[in-house]
Amino acid sequence: MNTLIQNVTALLPDGTTDVVNIAITNDEIFSVGDVPDDFIAQKVIDGTKHFAVPGFVNAHTHASMTLLRSYADDMKLMDWLQQMIWPIEAKLCSDDIYWGAMLAAAEMIRSGTTTFADMYGPDMERVAEVVEISGLRGVLSRGLIGLAPDAEKKIDENVYLYENFHGTADGRITVMFGPHALYTCPPDYLKKVAEKAQALGAEVHIHMSETIGEVEDCMKKYGKRPFAHVASTGLFENGTLAAHCVHLDDEDIDIIKKYHIRVVHNPGSNMKLASGTAPVPRLLAEGVCVALGTDGASSNNNLDMLDEIQLTALLHKVNTLDPLAVPALTAIKMGTEYGAQALSLPHIGKLQKGDKADIVLFSMHGVEWTPCYHPASLLAYAAKSSSIDTVMVNGSLLMENGALTTLDEERILYEAQRVADRLTK
Amino acid sequence: MNTLIQNVTALLPDGTTDVVNIAITNDEIFSVGDVPDDFIAQKVIDGTKHFAVPGFVNAHTHASMTLLRSYADDMKLMDWLQQMIWPIEAKLCSDDIYWGAMLAAAEMIRSGTTTFADMYGPDMERVAEVVEISGLRGVLSRGLIGLAPDAEKKIDENVYLYENFHGTADGRITVMFGPHALYTCPPDYLKKVAEKAQALGAEVHIHMSETIGEVEDCMKKYGKRPFAHVASTGLFENGTLAAHCVHLDDEDIDIIKKYHIRVVHNPGSNMKLASGTAPVPRLLAEGVCVALGTDGASSNNNLDMLDEIQLTALLHKVNTLDPLAVPALTAIKMGTEYGAQALSLPHIGKLQKGDKADIVLFSMHGVEWTPCYHPASLLAYAAKSSSIDTVMVNGSLLMENGALTTLDEERILYEAQRVADRLTK
Repeated sequence: MNTLIQNVTALLPDGTTDVVNIAITNDEIFSVGDVPDDFIAQKVIDGTKHFAVPGFVNAHTHASMTLLRSYADDMKLMDWLQQMIWPIEAKLCSDDIYWGAMLAAAEMIRSGTTTFADMYGPDMERVAEVVEISGLRGVLSRGLIGLAPDAEKKIDENVYLYENFHGTADGRITVMFGPHALYTCPPDYLKKVAEKAQALGAEVHIHMSETIGEVEDCMKKYGKRPFAHVASTGLFENGTLAAHCVHLDDEDIDIIKKYHIRVVHNPGSNMKLASGTAPVPRLLAEGVCVALGTDGASSNNNLDMLDEIQLTALLHKVNTLDPLAVPALTAIKMGTEYGAQALSLPHIGKLQKGDKADIVLFSMHGVEWTPCYHPASLLAYAAKSSSIDTVMVNGSLLMENGALTTLDEERILYEAQRVADRLTK
Repeated sequence: MNTLIQNVTALLPDGTTDVVNIAITNDEIFSVGDVPDDFIAQKVIDGTKHFAVPGFVNAHTHASMTLLRSYADDMKLMDWLQQMIWPIEAKLCSDDIYWGAMLAAAEMIRSGTTTFADMYGPDMERVAEVVEISGLRGVLSRGLIGLAPDAEKKIDENVYLYENFHGTADGRITVMFGPHALYTCPPDYLKKVAEKAQALGAEVHIHMSETIGEVEDCMKKYGKRPFAHVASTGLFENGTLAAHCVHLDDEDIDIIKKYHIRVVHNPGSNMKLASGTAPVPRLLAEGVCVALGTDGASSNNNLDMLDEIQLTALLHKVNTLDPLAVPALTAIKMGTEYGAQALSLPHIGKLQKGDKADIVLFSMHGVEWTPCYHPASLLAYAAKSSSIDTVMVNGSLLMENGALTTLDEERILYEAQRVADRLTK
């Protein structure tokens, strides 16, 4: 099927904006600019007064944790985890994982996210089901806790996930291995995960150096900083997505560069949990791929990638006292193009011929888009995700004129609240 | 006229939430809780699945600067001012001030702001006109630049504004004096402003200690830090609203407490301009009244007070590495109750009997409000101002079911863009 987005202001790969037509053939962008005379579209979308950007890439989240949104805020991290989050998580059943991920999917589509990297479990096949149904793109990993009684079983589940879902849903699902963190996975366990992943050719998604306590404990326990310690287990050999990376020194950054580790910055979560401020301007200057993520909704507390883009553009300016730190376009690229690179999805993240048609349209007819001098700057500093009215993945519409097309939103809101009521009864 | 908001989840003055009925008689809240049997309402609003909060108070802004939203971002402060902002501001005519303030009014109502403190000019009577028409509450001051060729005339304009508009529009307009800052107003000029304000019984709205450069220059030029210097001119004698207050030491805080100066924290602007992080947790702990403001839209770049509440709740946690810093309820109070105190408007800022009926309703039927354990926590960490559908000031509706009732939004969007096109031609 051919689709044509007419007369739309588009953010182009070189960072400029222009009014163009975007022609789409099946799941791919066929042209951006003029449309060939013989291009016949079965579906025409009027892009007038709309801003087209590549779909946002949420490179680190725990989708089903939307069920715990604002269940417990303003607490110390370990009190929060031990007294509130873990007891509830122990009660989650397969259907809960499903409805939590469904709520996340609805929220992500509404706020312009077209791809998400998820680490959670059990029952990650239910999240795969949500990806299949919703039309989103998902990079799924089973969260692996080496200290858990069923640690081995978790690895088996990740293998099962890889073998049964990697490359499915028209290629919208890919699978990574999800060792949670060095403080929940002993070295032997990390080695085992590394071997399994390597045998399958799978990459790894892990939390790294999120808190200063994690770094100090690692030094105490293993005599090395987190990156050196994990590198010694072989886990970084096959491609790594490292979430957080807040507390880094020169040696850590050298290891990140040596293994081409892609970093996921989570400013909302790092601010809310008081984890610290990651050295993003330095990482970018050193050529590291830095993507953005929301983390789970219970430490954010939403899955809105535009919030993360905006926080990134603001936080590093005040943190470095440099008003030029992480300018608008860089923050947007972190949420789109760099996110795609981070997830090893080279065919998304830009509005260009040959890329998959993952496209988001913001209506610019509204107060926060007025007046309009520089759409990209408005996007980074003024806009709201609520002005998104059209979302497309692989050339298929997931939201049109503000309505979700693949999901039953009313049912999702109802079921998510029902699950929440049961969990906290 | 009597209005009844039925069956609404309300944020009560003690910080709890409860499902209540809110009865309104003319411009005042008559009761919160049960409704007297003999209360007959001419207007009934169904508050089911809505969260009622006091209208947000934007305690520091420059409304007409919405015209310069994202005109020039990612620049150094002085380059930005000298090359981009000031040349455009020099072209502003009376109608531009009007349409800029109209755009601001539409944006503020949509995002739940019911009261704003504005410092700008010339032609502040046009902003008063916008307050009159829009139904908002405005605390207006003429921005006074003592270094300008027409410095004396500016004071006369502020006097005119006070004498002709203070207490007008059913009491919705009050007027302060607006000496811009110590670096644009020499000491003799500040003395003159202080005398004029004192003679009229007016309070003062000023920028204080926004950048480290301002503090250093003040020390160099006057041998004193900003607060001691300005105190010596007598400007703090009659009640002061001090915006920014980023760079404070013990002596500054002592002066703030001595003169009961109300501080306006502007996290979005301070982050974007890389000004620094104000010591908000300490100020609050010492009993200082700290309100929130957006600053102008060209340094923010919107006028969304919920963004400022959320930034406040996040920024101070990461800045102090304390996850308990500025909890949800405190941030909300800063944007409502403390804002009212800061603007010397004791009859707004809380949902309680006898207060003016300035009320905002958020629809909680949506993804980011689901599931709902703690509405106030969702407001501070997850919600979007786009879920506001009803806004009331003095018991009159300014927005109903998502539509503005007092303003012609289409005309405003058109005129604001037209002005912007002319200014930058």
